[in-house]
Amino acid sequence: MRPSGRSLDEMRTISIETDITRHAEGSCMIRCGDTHVLCTASLEERVPPFLRNTGQGWVTAEYGMLPRATTTRMRREASSGKQTGRTQEIQRLIGRSLRAGIDRQAMGERQITVDCDVIQADGGTRCAAITGGWIALRLAVNKLMAAGDITMDPILDHVAAVSCGIYAGQPVLDLDYPEDSEAGTDGNFVMTGAGRMIEIQASAEGATFGQDQFAEMMALAEKGVSDLVAAQKAAVGG
Amino acid sequence: MRPSGRSLDEMRTISIETDITRHAEGSCMIRCGDTHVLCTASLEERVPPFLRNTGQGWVTAEYGMLPRATTTRMRREASSGKQTGRTQEIQRLIGRSLRAGIDRQAMGERQITVDCDVIQADGGTRCAAITGGWIALRLAVNKLMAAGDITMDPILDHVAAVSCGIYAGQPVLDLDYPEDSEAGTDGNFVMTGAGRMIEIQASAEGATFGQDQFAEMMALAEKGVSDLVAAQKAAVGG
Amino acid sequence: MRPSGRSLDEMRTISIETDITRHAEGSCMIRCGDTHVLCTASLEERVPPFLRNTGQGWVTAEYGMLPRATTTRMRREASSGKQTGRTQEIQRLIGRSLRAGIDRQAMGERQITVDCDVIQADGGTRCAAITGGWIALRLAVNKLMAAGDITMDPILDHVAAVSCGIYAGQPVLDLDYPEDSEAGTDGNFVMTGAGRMIEIQASAEGATFGQDQFAEMMALAEKGVSDLVAAQKAAVGG
Amino acid sequence: MRPSGRSLDEMRTISIETDITRHAEGSCMIRCGDTHVLCTASLEERVPPFLRNTGQGWVTAEYGMLPRATTTRMRREASSGKQTGRTQEIQRLIGRSLRAGIDRQAMGERQITVDCDVIQADGGTRCAAITGGWIALRLAVNKLMAAGDITMDPILDHVAAVSCGIYAGQPVLDLDYPEDSEAGTDGNFVMTGAGRMIEIQASAEGATFGQDQFAEMMALAEKGVSDLVAAQKAAVGG
Amino acid sequence: MRPSGRSLDEMRTISIETDITRHAEGSCMIRCGDTHVLCTASLEERVPPFLRNTGQGWVTAEYGMLPRATTTRMRREASSGKQTGRTQEIQRLIGRSLRAGIDRQAMGERQITVDCDVIQADGGTRCAAITGGWIALRLAVNKLMAAGDITMDPILDHVAAVSCGIYAGQPVLDLDYPEDSEAGTDGNFVMTGAGRMIEIQASAEGATFGQDQFAEMMALAEKGVSDLVAAQKAAVGG
Amino acid sequence: MRPSGRSLDEMRTISIETDITRHAEGSCMIRCGDTHVLCTASLEERVPPFLRNTGQGWVTAEYGMLPRATTTRMRREASSGKQTGRTQEIQRLIGRSLRAGIDRQAMGERQITVDCDVIQADGGTRCAAITGGWIALRLAVNKLMAAGDITMDPILDHVAAVSCGIYAGQPVLDLDYPEDSEAGTDGNFVMTGAGRMIEIQASAEGATFGQDQFAEMMALAEKGVSDLVAAQKAAVGG
Repeated sequence: MRPSGRSLDEMRTISIETDITRHAEGSCMIRCGDTHVLCTASLEERVPPFLRNTGQGWVTAEYGMLPRATTTRMRREASSGKQTGRTQEIQRLIGRSLRAGIDRQAMGERQITVDCDVIQADGGTRCAAITGGWIALRLAVNKLMAAGDITMDPILDHVAAVSCGIYAGQPVLDLDYPEDSEAGTDGNFVMTGAGRMIEIQASAEGATFGQDQFAEMMALAEKGVSDLVAAQKAAVGG
Repeated sequence: MRPSGRSLDEMRTISIETDITRHAEGSCMIRCGDTHVLCTASLEERVPPFLRNTGQGWVTAEYGMLPRATTTRMRREASSGKQTGRTQEIQRLIGRSLRAGIDRQAMGERQITVDCDVIQADGGTRCAAITGGWIALRLAVNKLMAAGDITMDPILDHVAAVSCGIYAGQPVLDLDYPEDSEAGTDGNFVMTGAGRMIEIQASAEGATFGQDQFAEMMALAEKGVSDLVAAQKAAVGG
Repeated sequence: MRPSGRSLDEMRTISIETDITRHAEGSCMIRCGDTHVLCTASLEERVPPFLRNTGQGWVTAEYGMLPRATTTRMRREASSGKQTGRTQEIQRLIGRSLRAGIDRQAMGERQITVDCDVIQADGGTRCAAITGGWIALRLAVNKLMAAGDITMDPILDHVAAVSCGIYAGQPVLDLDYPEDSEAGTDGNFVMTGAGRMIEIQASAEGATFGQDQFAEMMALAEKGVSDLVAAQKAAVGG
Repeated sequence: MRPSGRSLDEMRTISIETDITRHAEGSCMIRCGDTHVLCTASLEERVPPFLRNTGQGWVTAEYGMLPRATTTRMRREASSGKQTGRTQEIQRLIGRSLRAGIDRQAMGERQITVDCDVIQADGGTRCAAITGGWIALRLAVNKLMAAGDITMDPILDHVAAVSCGIYAGQPVLDLDYPEDSEAGTDGNFVMTGAGRMIEIQASAEGATFGQDQFAEMMALAEKGVSDLVAAQKAAVGG
Repeated sequence: MRPSGRSLDEMRTISIETDITRHAEGSCMIRCGDTHVLCTASLEERVPPFLRNTGQGWVTAEYGMLPRATTTRMRREASSGKQTGRTQEIQRLIGRSLRAGIDRQAMGERQITVDCDVIQADGGTRCAAITGGWIALRLAVNKLMAAGDITMDPILDHVAAVSCGIYAGQPVLDLDYPEDSEAGTDGNFVMTGAGRMIEIQASAEGATFGQDQFAEMMALAEKGVSDLVAAQKAAVGG
Repeated sequence: MRPSGRSLDEMRTISIETDITRHAEGSCMIRCGDTHVLCTASLEERVPPFLRNTGQGWVTAEYGMLPRATTTRMRREASSGKQTGRTQEIQRLIGRSLRAGIDRQAMGERQITVDCDVIQADGGTRCAAITGGWIALRLAVNKLMAAGDITMDPILDHVAAVSCGIYAGQPVLDLDYPEDSEAGTDGNFVMTGAGRMIEIQASAEGATFGQDQFAEMMALAEKGVSDLVAAQKAAVGG
């Protein structure tokens, strides 16, 4: 029934390739089916003004899409002179999600910027960005710990995200673009490795949804995040 | 226990004053405690390019805050030259929410722009904007129907929104600013008069949350939206 | 002869409602007929760079219009990414006018920002903004004096403004929108309570004007400002 | 008593050099003492959208300053990404002033853009721009008439402008920069060759002013404009 | 003597991987040592306004760098709101270079946009972008020809580019970043497969250069381009 | 054969008028035929952040065109809100070129900004800007030396620039606009008084060019720069 032939609770193939650029303190290419996102973590020994002399660190994120990551070419945001509302919404979500999984006191007064750039899009780019962004963050923190700059691991748990939706009347896991563009409801679930919630965003895009349907999406999301966390562990240990 | 002395499931006082400006096709001032939002609906007999000649209409929203709606003055967005990510996120949410409650085919090829301007802020401005924005939209549609421009009512149901959060470890309804700024988790729930979900956004802002806590917030939200819909009915009939 | 039926030298009904928002140090809603402007004064204990360590304070103003303050909706300036030339011209005028009525040495090295936001427009918004802005400024200064932060009242006199124009060949006082859009000449007069001039702007918008006509407008303006100052006194004493 | 040694009602030396660029339909360099403004008029056979098919033409103006026209270098507006409020105010004034002196029906459905670029500034640049801008406009219209594109001269009268102010307590004519920066009141008067008023802008910049002082400034302005109109006639005949 | 140990006329390892994204009509990842650029060609059946109804097509290019393509993170251009002068200069160069190698009449009235995004930078990114951009263009044109949309191949010849410079007093080929940042002179040479010149840009960045040195750089460039063209042929045949 | 009747290696008439504005530390109007550029040098006793406390100075340049410097009016960059890619490219070139001719250590920790504003354009504006910009720089440095602020002359040599191109199949010197718009290849050559190269930019704009043609252009450029340097010497001595 799904365009891809997947079963309702079946994730796309996940692959995480680490250390794919030589400059960044942490990096990976995450592939969730045909959605490919390049994530890098950049470390700076300074924090935003509002955190100076608090002893706390900061994690922030930026998100972008290459112009031809999509089926038809989209205008380059650098050329149009501003980031769309969608881009800003997504990068704020990534930042909030990653901050929820780190002890900012333990990381010390430094900033890690996670850049998530979509190389190829097929639905679920923000979820892939969160899941891959966590890998880049993990690797950058590992480097800080290996160098002895941090003694206690500030990372509290894995952070991963998956989308669920109501497609053709059925709750399905990990929507690809053909599903996403037809789905009546679309949700993104960000969770920890322990299954705690970090962020839930569910939105009716055609038909409203009931509490039952929402509960089914939540259950699917738990399964999906658990698969993603397993892939994260395979990629970076732990 | 709550700073305002309200019980955990107690809404702030809701008041909706309609037809408060003479130019707009529909308007109201909605007050949820000390949060005051002026909502206007502006009708235009044209639609965005992607809808031309489809017979479908469009509902969109814009959101703003007067610079001194807040405790300390914030920079005027018109002067800084761009809307913040927060503003864009909110106005996209209002637009999506209102569109979910209207039959765009039935409204015909015209556009209604709902402007929500926060005159005074004390938490929950986006929810007040959605609830009051629906009133402005309802009044503008009433005018179209009274004029005979539309024969079948395109409005499918009431749309209203309320925030819930985990404050001092307890799920509470309708957060005001002192609660909002301390809450570990903050959620916004947009629902129809019939209790169907339109949008759920819940976000951990300090501590992650479990499924139980989320279920409690959802139950509070149902109660709150039901109060809001009652206030809407009192204001515009129906 | 005037669309409103007013006599040539008759002002619209003036009302000034003070302390209408809870956050601002001073605020009012001023209504000149159907023109309604919300004015707030925000106090900051810092001054622009060019005044640092001079012991002098600063008063500045910003002006905005809600998108549907007008007959047809206007584009939101925050969304178009810049303030129009008209907006900038008006807010510079308001700032200059209010500064002319205050002793900046006596106010001390602090800044007061007066925000004037037009809720509903029917001509004469800049004049209402100046007259109402002075009220907000007066109230904020009162607060500083009550707190003992300033000992000598820095406010030198009332500041109020009114428009006059040549409508249908006749000098008239306090133009409303139907008159303003037809007037051959349009002038704004900012004066003190003692009748001294702060700013005169008169502009031919169709037909040039002679010195006699200008003198008649000036005389009307004196009468109008005197009514406005009386309303200011009624609102804040003095 | 004046820094320049001029008497109170003495203009600076005026010179108008016409046809100073080869591309523009009309052009001049106007020099009022050390204030030098290059004015060009550019003709286009199209009008802004709001005038299409009305048979009426349009005159508009733009104003700029070379970065080192002033004593210390000012930031280039093209580089800072926006025109200042002052620039916008001035170019709107120039446009309104020139439009007041032309019959837009008689000029036919075409647009003339007058560019006024300050090469060297020493006070009174907006007045020089209006006076010189009128010359450029006159020459461009002459070209249209010589080509037979217009049969009736649409120019109604000369348009010229001069500043007056209260300097050291005395009304003075045609302020240069040392006077302008010290003046308690500063006014700009735009008039026709016949002495009719087009625009009056007078502003207290330190001390308020009385009606007597204003009347004295007005009388000085009449004298100054009469000198400027004589210089215009010498430059382009008429 | 070179930091990399290469001989003076030795290129870095070149690799070209084609068809690396599924959406673009043509694409490749080109790697010149540690400089990696992702190039895509996007086809649209429309041309810029100045070419409408001329029967001619257009090739244009855009260039970007991922924020952490460089040693230290650079600000994202989409976030700063504009493309730097350097970015604009480079994308104009890429566009001009590719247009010089195509018969725009033969390609028909369509546009191909070549996006060059630097994934990892180590000097010579604009040259890699031109060489890889030509591959993407070649593949997109192949697709048009395979579909029968074009009958005659509009591509006139290969286009490739290489940098040369004076490093430590010696002309060297294909500068990497450590060389580029120290070079006294830096040049970029764009040539055709037949060795004709398309663009030469040589710039003294410390010491001026003589005609002899320039001739040596030109000779090195010929060798380098010949290697690049061979790599292009290996990648796409021809 | 050339539209102007000049021989292939004939420059346009060069004139350099110095000290043409009273405020700038150095200034000239350079005229190369009908291309007229006003150049000013502005001295500031501060340097960009990256040079603070290095003892080195900085020379930078900005370039602009008056809107009607060209045959048809171009949009004012200050009004469109950004400098075009062409403008940025040119001003970067002027800055690099002038820096190549000065010892930044010897000039001390100060900045000279050279503004080049095109008053009238007929091809070759960037070359005229470099040649005239050097004059403004020379005069500003003279002033510093006369004041004893610098003891050793930091200017290393003359800097001048000329364009060459392939017009109607023939290499020609100093293209004017009719030639420039038709030329198959267009090059700009920046050289020192001693004939050393500072910058070479040659670009095929229609047909590619061979090494022979390039050598011929280079020879023409040497002749042209030598004429320009002679004109510089006549203008400022040396």
